[in-house]
Amino acid sequence: MDHASHMGFQMSHFEWMGLLAGCLTTGAFAPQAIQILRTRRVQDISLAMYVLFSTGVALWIAYGLAIRSLSLVLFNGITLLLSGSVLVLKIKYGRRAPEQSQTRPSHG
Amino acid sequence: MDHASHMGFQMSHFEWMGLLAGCLTTGAFAPQAIQILRTRRVQDISLAMYVLFSTGVALWIAYGLAIRSLSLVLFNGITLLLSGSVLVLKIKYGRRAPEQSQTRPSHG
Repeated sequence: MDHASHMGFQMSHFEWMGLLAGCLTTGAFAPQAIQILRTRRVQDISLAMYVLFSTGVALWIAYGLAIRSLSLVLFNGITLLLSGSVLVLKIKYGRRAPEQSQTRPSHG
Repeated sequence: MDHASHMGFQMSHFEWMGLLAGCLTTGAFAPQAIQILRTRRVQDISLAMYVLFSTGVALWIAYGLAIRSLSLVLFNGITLLLSGSVLVLKIKYGRRAPEQSQTRPSHG
């Protein structure tokens, strides 16, 4: 773990707890985010909720850097990658109504 | 903030960042949990995901106590109250099939 302390993180004796906590909470969030990224089904997710959540996660990273907690920075970093990608997808695809069969004048 | 330092928390200069981060991430999670608690619609939530998530949140509290971070303990505490209640509800109501109209012999 020298590399972490070299990067200025305070490797407390309890760091394993934070690392395990991060594995579990990021692990619980990841499947939902990955499914949204794969299916691009962003209609039923709330833009406001994802903006709120991603901003909070970014602040946890800033706080983690400030108190030099590797667990906070590492796992909120992964979570932000996921929630940030969902946010980009929501902004890109969220507006367009789901492809219904548009009624076009028949040429028949 | 004397009360917090009296309780042994390390009130770092950056604590406001952690408190704000906690407000946002717990705030993003709360509406979904409260809606489940109100409607008791637990069929479409994953027991495994909530167990994973709640265990992780409990570990964040333990880690927060270990590194004396008020933000981690306070907001993961609120989140655990919410996710723990959803878990209890899921275990209580999750098994029962949603009330379909049972076909009962008509009494004519």
